[in-house]
Amino acid sequence: MNSSAAYLRLCDALMENSPALLATDQLLRDTLTLSSGNPGKLIRARLVLAAADAHGLEEGPAERLACAVEYFHIASLLLDDLPCMDDAWTRRGRPCAHKLYGESSAILGALAFINRAYALTGFVFASHPAEIRLQATACLDACLGPAGLVGGQAADLSFAQSDRSAREVAMIAARKTGSLFWLAVYFPALLGAPSQKELHALKALCVYWGLAYQAADDLQDALLNAFESGKTAGRDRALTRPNLAHAIGVPATQARIARLMEQSRRVVERLGATSQRWGYLGGFHREFVEPMVCAVAA
Amino acid sequence: MNSSAAYLRLCDALMENSPALLATDQLLRDTLTLSSGNPGKLIRARLVLAAADAHGLEEGPAERLACAVEYFHIASLLLDDLPCMDDAWTRRGRPCAHKLYGESSAILGALAFINRAYALTGFVFASHPAEIRLQATACLDACLGPAGLVGGQAADLSFAQSDRSAREVAMIAARKTGSLFWLAVYFPALLGAPSQKELHALKALCVYWGLAYQAADDLQDALLNAFESGKTAGRDRALTRPNLAHAIGVPATQARIARLMEQSRRVVERLGATSQRWGYLGGFHREFVEPMVCAVAA
Repeated sequence: MNSSAAYLRLCDALMENSPALLATDQLLRDTLTLSSGNPGKLIRARLVLAAADAHGLEEGPAERLACAVEYFHIASLLLDDLPCMDDAWTRRGRPCAHKLYGESSAILGALAFINRAYALTGFVFASHPAEIRLQATACLDACLGPAGLVGGQAADLSFAQSDRSAREVAMIAARKTGSLFWLAVYFPALLGAPSQKELHALKALCVYWGLAYQAADDLQDALLNAFESGKTAGRDRALTRPNLAHAIGVPATQARIARLMEQSRRVVERLGATSQRWGYLGGFHREFVEPMVCAVAA
Repeated sequence: MNSSAAYLRLCDALMENSPALLATDQLLRDTLTLSSGNPGKLIRARLVLAAADAHGLEEGPAERLACAVEYFHIASLLLDDLPCMDDAWTRRGRPCAHKLYGESSAILGALAFINRAYALTGFVFASHPAEIRLQATACLDACLGPAGLVGGQAADLSFAQSDRSAREVAMIAARKTGSLFWLAVYFPALLGAPSQKELHALKALCVYWGLAYQAADDLQDALLNAFESGKTAGRDRALTRPNLAHAIGVPATQARIARLMEQSRRVVERLGATSQRWGYLGGFHREFVEPMVCAVAA
């Protein structure tokens, strides 16, 4: 399937599986419709879809799993944008949900997406062996809890009180952005019952891609304006948030991104050599990760 | 097991399974520790524990399932108390988490509890047949999403713009308070693979108990002061929130509670007659629900 067909398929699936269909409250429904109907690049959802297709899931369950990971991501954006978090005004070129429909609707909308994501995951994994289900549960627990996304966001908000070192920045990036790559790469790969060696390589890939992606995002925040980035830019410095370009400078950030890209390319090649079923990771690296990261890092 | 032993066992389990153990951020850890270390009456967790014991779960998994439902409940309290929701200052006789540690910590704390609750549920149900797991997933989806807790809270906040009828009040109570009774009664009962007739009776019991409990809570808010109730009282009228005692008056509310208690007593008896394993529901009705509801409704 070509890339724009997959994108359109995902846009439809995000509306079809949305919790908006069950919402009777107007503000909640509008929040959910806005959030699932205004997708970004869908990097993570496309990765999950490619993985699910490669590992033999049928069309419906594959889309539902991709929606689940995207809903976790949407929920994190709704909450990150709140006044008590990053206090953002725009997201994907439009006013943030909390600006349009109120903070309570943004919070409840995030909960509705998280809940739906867990339900979709439960339904998709229901017929898989207990061992795979336990691994998937442990993966969600690690990625979304205090050791993952929630902990990363908390450390992000406390960053001004930390030593503001490059190490602290990397730790936060690993938990915040890295966790969502674990959900997009490691989590659906469990469907393919990978060997220990393959699991090891997948973990490394999540780390490299996640760090490169966050570093590119930091560069973008440091260099571009809101019009170009589609979201409230320059916030990291204004709010004393972790930003690699502020911590080590622009040239060193660009060099680090190049190194992470090289490391991930090598992992992708190594995985491709073990089995054809990991071919989608190589395609993804060339088609999306490299162009996206390099566009801002060049 | 007597009631105070079960209570102490649950207090320990709530700390042992808490996401606080994984939190490195001070504010997040303090929020989680405060919330799981200052339990209320643990009505729902005790119901789950009794059900899990009755349906043959071992000690550890039984406690973990009880913690899961209590964590869902704690998360809903953390979020309900926020300034953009009910704007409460005290909870269980202490300052609310957002007053002590900030709104972002309260929100992230709620997410950590929800995530942990789903993980515990996934681990506990992992070895059960697919049919029971699918029912459990569907139950969580219905109870926690826009048709349940999230939708109830949204309707609660929009109540001032509704017709403010007793019907609207009952709909909101069913979604907000009712959903948590479904999690405490219907959800763990799935472990016992109930018949269609038993499922029907369990659903009715959730409705009756949920409505009676919410009506008693409404009466408490309308009649008592903050010192007596342990939380910010009189908020319903101040914020134009749904309150049965405001909608139909105090005597009619008391009469409705008495009727709901009679209806639930009959369902509990009917269930007890079908099988001994539902005996815990009768014990619970006599020991907790009646005294608690009647104390305020008398």
